[in-house]
Amino acid sequence: METTQVRLAAYPVGVPADSDFEFATVSLPDLAEGQVLLRAIYLSLDPYVRGRMSTAKSYADPLALGDVVMGGTVCEVVESRSGDRQVGDVVLAFTGWQTHAVVDARHTRRLDPSTAPISTALGVLGMPGFTAYAGLLEIGRPKAGETVVTAAAAGPVGSAVGQIARLKGARAVGIAGGAEKCRVLVEQLGFDAAVDHRSETFVDDLAAATPDGIDVYFENVGGPVAEAVGRRLNRYARVPVCGLVAGYNDTAAAEGPDRLPGFMRRVLTLSLTVRGFIQDEFAATHTADFAREMGGWVGDGSVRYLEDVTDGLDQAPEAFRGLLSGRNLGKALVRVGTDPTSTS
Amino acid sequence: METTQVRLAAYPVGVPADSDFEFATVSLPDLAEGQVLLRAIYLSLDPYVRGRMSTAKSYADPLALGDVVMGGTVCEVVESRSGDRQVGDVVLAFTGWQTHAVVDARHTRRLDPSTAPISTALGVLGMPGFTAYAGLLEIGRPKAGETVVTAAAAGPVGSAVGQIARLKGARAVGIAGGAEKCRVLVEQLGFDAAVDHRSETFVDDLAAATPDGIDVYFENVGGPVAEAVGRRLNRYARVPVCGLVAGYNDTAAAEGPDRLPGFMRRVLTLSLTVRGFIQDEFAATHTADFAREMGGWVGDGSVRYLEDVTDGLDQAPEAFRGLLSGRNLGKALVRVGTDPTSTS
Repeated sequence: METTQVRLAAYPVGVPADSDFEFATVSLPDLAEGQVLLRAIYLSLDPYVRGRMSTAKSYADPLALGDVVMGGTVCEVVESRSGDRQVGDVVLAFTGWQTHAVVDARHTRRLDPSTAPISTALGVLGMPGFTAYAGLLEIGRPKAGETVVTAAAAGPVGSAVGQIARLKGARAVGIAGGAEKCRVLVEQLGFDAAVDHRSETFVDDLAAATPDGIDVYFENVGGPVAEAVGRRLNRYARVPVCGLVAGYNDTAAAEGPDRLPGFMRRVLTLSLTVRGFIQDEFAATHTADFAREMGGWVGDGSVRYLEDVTDGLDQAPEAFRGLLSGRNLGKALVRVGTDPTSTS
Repeated sequence: METTQVRLAAYPVGVPADSDFEFATVSLPDLAEGQVLLRAIYLSLDPYVRGRMSTAKSYADPLALGDVVMGGTVCEVVESRSGDRQVGDVVLAFTGWQTHAVVDARHTRRLDPSTAPISTALGVLGMPGFTAYAGLLEIGRPKAGETVVTAAAAGPVGSAVGQIARLKGARAVGIAGGAEKCRVLVEQLGFDAAVDHRSETFVDDLAAATPDGIDVYFENVGGPVAEAVGRRLNRYARVPVCGLVAGYNDTAAAEGPDRLPGFMRRVLTLSLTVRGFIQDEFAATHTADFAREMGGWVGDGSVRYLEDVTDGLDQAPEAFRGLLSGRNLGKALVRVGTDPTSTS
């Protein structure tokens, strides 16, 4: 059995170029006891992977040149030497940007296609949904009547943040790029308001959408959007920081003026809480609550989700660039192979 | 009865100049029922007052031109129409930069000179000590074995922060300006290490003093010191922000490069908590614990304090400039009049 892989060929400078990736097809080893052979169905594309394509110090080691690009996957078991997994099982795994992989069965989690579409294990019921749930409830702590603003609101984290905020009685305001995304946020996902950060009237629109100021800003983009939000924060506002995608392709220190002193003055005078987090910090404490509560909300339609599916592993680099530039509407997935549970 | 006052004559641009203040002597009104006439003994000089000399938006309204400059005071009651206060009582009040004042007795708190020197009500047992206590324990939350760094460590907040951190089992490292201050921190106040931020080897010295990185940075200065500390923060570090005195005299946006994106990346990748606070946020919840615990520590010598006393209200503007430029060693006080409890 062979697998086709997408490997890191060079550390990208700025936007990842096609030449930063290389495709290779290699043989897989025979299964050892306890292992399974997996065929990838869905591959998750995530902004944090851009950080791993850099040797800058971070919370995790960078990819080495030649490594298969990392990523969560939903796979079908096509061969098994584990008593816990049968051929045909659908599992959550972390096999990265490739068509097949041999892994230990204990590094997979079996999914039940009858409870939710299997792709949701990479989105609203997976890591992005968990990021939204734990970060909003543990750090943002929205109270009824407060205003919660999330950037990248049409993405899988932001769209969950806004909907959970509403379920907690808060006013949910989404920021997204383009009128179409904003329309979807209000009409399909039930946000109280949505603001297009590409509009020339963005700052005024944000003010109009947040008449009582902002109590929670779920930060996952940074850049000018964050600057505009910062000017509307209320005293004691909380800012969970789970991503800064606007700067992930930056190659040099930004030009002045230096905004850090002004930012710190705002932290001081407004008694702000700015708290970075990586979702795995909350895995031990919040996973069970998330599965029960979020599973219930998705099951009964209280929380909806959007997916942006690209077909074919060969399209992964271009889809990844689209993700980093905000082109996707909903969770960015690559359909690597046929979904046996899909009726469409 | 007359009072001599120091009033704000102009909003300072940069360092407050003599011409930004005006001295005036005016008559005081007769006492109404429930009021006392106070004679100031000690006046507290505090960095936050520089913020009130600006019309920039902050957590409190600015001083108006012509207002007496604000400040906490320890006073003697020289006339009383209140059953709760007798002539000769020593009280904590908030009468500002003036020699005498008429206030409602209920706006004063009686001090017991037998339990602690009366000046401590403006320092280690007053607002600066409370800022250190509440900010460190509620936001910094040092654990035994962790490293706590405080800037302005020879000031009344920083010196208390370091000593409380040690009492909680943490390693206390102070940053101060000059070798003499650093010597005092280690030899008199029991800091584990002290680092001179004016030294050319400051960055290396800080690294040597914090071999296990930094878990809590009590931020009260900002500027280049904060930048150096930031590079040594550990994952999950906490940064209580109670002041930014390095920038209080700044008149324009700092020149580039823009350090905010890098700061936010650090917040994200290290899961930092950056939390601004004004001590009154914790008054309702922490005042009783503070009085009991800190009073005990000061009483038994576990927490020591330094005072920097300037004689004469006419010296207040110059002493205030000294405070803003870090010239003081310990709590900055002006002795406005004779201390009747002092034996020296």
